[in-house]
Amino acid sequence: MLTYLRFAQNAASRIVGICLGLTLTVCAVPLLAQTPAQPPAQTQPAAAASTSTPRSFGDIVAAAPADAWRTPDPQNVVYLDIPTGRVVIELAPNLAPEHVANIRTLIREKYFDGLAIVRSQDNYVVQWGDPVDKVPRKPIGSAKPSLAPEFERTLSAEAFKRFAFDALPDRDGYAAEVGFASGFHAGRDPKTNTVWGAHCYGVVGVGRGNESTSGNGASLYAIIGHAPRHLDRNITVVGRVLQGMPLLSILPRGTRPLGFYATPAETTPLRAVSLAADLPASERVPVEVMRTDSPSFTQAVEALRNRGAGDPNGWFKRPAGYVELCNVSIPVRLKPTK
Amino acid sequence: MLTYLRFAQNAASRIVGICLGLTLTVCAVPLLAQTPAQPPAQTQPAAAASTSTPRSFGDIVAAAPADAWRTPDPQNVVYLDIPTGRVVIELAPNLAPEHVANIRTLIREKYFDGLAIVRSQDNYVVQWGDPVDKVPRKPIGSAKPSLAPEFERTLSAEAFKRFAFDALPDRDGYAAEVGFASGFHAGRDPKTNTVWGAHCYGVVGVGRGNESTSGNGASLYAIIGHAPRHLDRNITVVGRVLQGMPLLSILPRGTRPLGFYATPAETTPLRAVSLAADLPASERVPVEVMRTDSPSFTQAVEALRNRGAGDPNGWFKRPAGYVELCNVSIPVRLKPTK
Repeated sequence: MLTYLRFAQNAASRIVGICLGLTLTVCAVPLLAQTPAQPPAQTQPAAAASTSTPRSFGDIVAAAPADAWRTPDPQNVVYLDIPTGRVVIELAPNLAPEHVANIRTLIREKYFDGLAIVRSQDNYVVQWGDPVDKVPRKPIGSAKPSLAPEFERTLSAEAFKRFAFDALPDRDGYAAEVGFASGFHAGRDPKTNTVWGAHCYGVVGVGRGNESTSGNGASLYAIIGHAPRHLDRNITVVGRVLQGMPLLSILPRGTRPLGFYATPAETTPLRAVSLAADLPASERVPVEVMRTDSPSFTQAVEALRNRGAGDPNGWFKRPAGYVELCNVSIPVRLKPTK
Repeated sequence: MLTYLRFAQNAASRIVGICLGLTLTVCAVPLLAQTPAQPPAQTQPAAAASTSTPRSFGDIVAAAPADAWRTPDPQNVVYLDIPTGRVVIELAPNLAPEHVANIRTLIREKYFDGLAIVRSQDNYVVQWGDPVDKVPRKPIGSAKPSLAPEFERTLSAEAFKRFAFDALPDRDGYAAEVGFASGFHAGRDPKTNTVWGAHCYGVVGVGRGNESTSGNGASLYAIIGHAPRHLDRNITVVGRVLQGMPLLSILPRGTRPLGFYATPAETTPLRAVSLAADLPASERVPVEVMRTDSPSFTQAVEALRNRGAGDPNGWFKRPAGYVELCNVSIPVRLKPTK
């Protein structure tokens, strides 16, 4: 008798290459996507034309040309160093320019160094930074103590048209349209020229109080469970974790309500929080992110949308014909060494 | 400056009562749902009629009458005892009668005792049981080595009408209709009289190989990340975790492809796996599950659908007006002591 376990090993062998040095988080979808891509006419004709034989998500990602990948701007890459390793976060200034600017200031003035991860709530978030219970709170230096909310961005009709957004054809219950804004999971409403970050696994946001203006970036969270999309447009999304999610997701859950740790001893110290731009190039993590406007990404998403299509001997027996926004993992890899 | 952290503590204080003795998993949604329920006319008039003032999910769950709760049949309750504690699973014989029967046989013949959790893949699954790499595999006794797939159940028109299903009005991308089948997250298609278990957080399924008939219940998995709904109708769902998810979700991720552990030392032993029915009543965990056909559940779901509605001073500023199936947590509690 074959088993799911054995299937999984076979599947893994097909794309483990792109996972080299990366966490299983960023590889999770590729590793699951071991079914062919056969784009239906109504979605990606370009992809259809370039896909002569069924290929899996992993096959497509592994074969993607160099120009399908982008190197995040070091000014937008944050390293969260904890005792178990390094979490790499990409900030999204196009979604929340003021909050991202404030977070850069906090990082450069070492605000986070010596603070800790203070919360781990199962199937929801981990949260770090602002210790809160400490009175007085750590001074935030020259960062702004309060910011106007950036829960969403409402643009002029012209700016909305220009705003980079790679839409999915798949319908969504929380947004009029979903897709990828400047490479980040997002929703948008063409009727109001509004765009916002979507709370998918690994997305990073700014903790706030009841007041919309009460967030300043000193308290940040990452989603570690099923996408709490009801948070969309209610709190400011500032980026997503590119590498190291398992370092956050396996943290013991806090025993106080909402997963806060009961004692400082239970918290995870932030040894250092830095911007890639402030480190020598030789000390930066050479991550590359697949461009969501690349044909390779379009083909890879189609492989997720119709797992098993055209592969009667594959594991998947019934292609969904649909992919939910947060089930699309934007591929991340370490820059290949020539 | 208030912080998200402080908000969270305030919110928690409102419903922590129902969480007593339960994991944050089962409390996660109540703890997050600190906004009022104001059912719109198009959904639940009954709930609307019974809701004079906005109440939060937590308020509604805490105030639910005794008849809004059910005690799972001990024949369907599995205790997975690992070194860190007990995971309580409710089996769903209405979704997969043959697989559930085989799992009961495996449990009663102590098949799982001494086996282990062999896989933890970030944002996907943990998997236990059938060791697979061991050759020969542990004999499965009088359990059936192979079963016809129960990926979905296709019923007669009459049986489909009678099949307990509490539908959500909210649209879904993976199913024609979604809701709760015999109290479990599910999808269905009235055109084909078909119903199936949906892969939400905490759902338990039967590992299989490429062959649809290759699953027998000796290898089981639980979802620990964003709902992989593309698995729906491709693999047999047999139940869900009622209590103890954090014991599974924080397990270190395996370092082999797909999260399999590289060495036996990394696995988590299953000290004992038992059916509640086989233990004295005094040794059973007195869990109760909210009935998905109760007015309280309808009202509670509406509180999740429109968090913040009617509460301008609450944390949520923009009610979603929608709730995705897997963002509905079916409340679980310990039976109140008189």
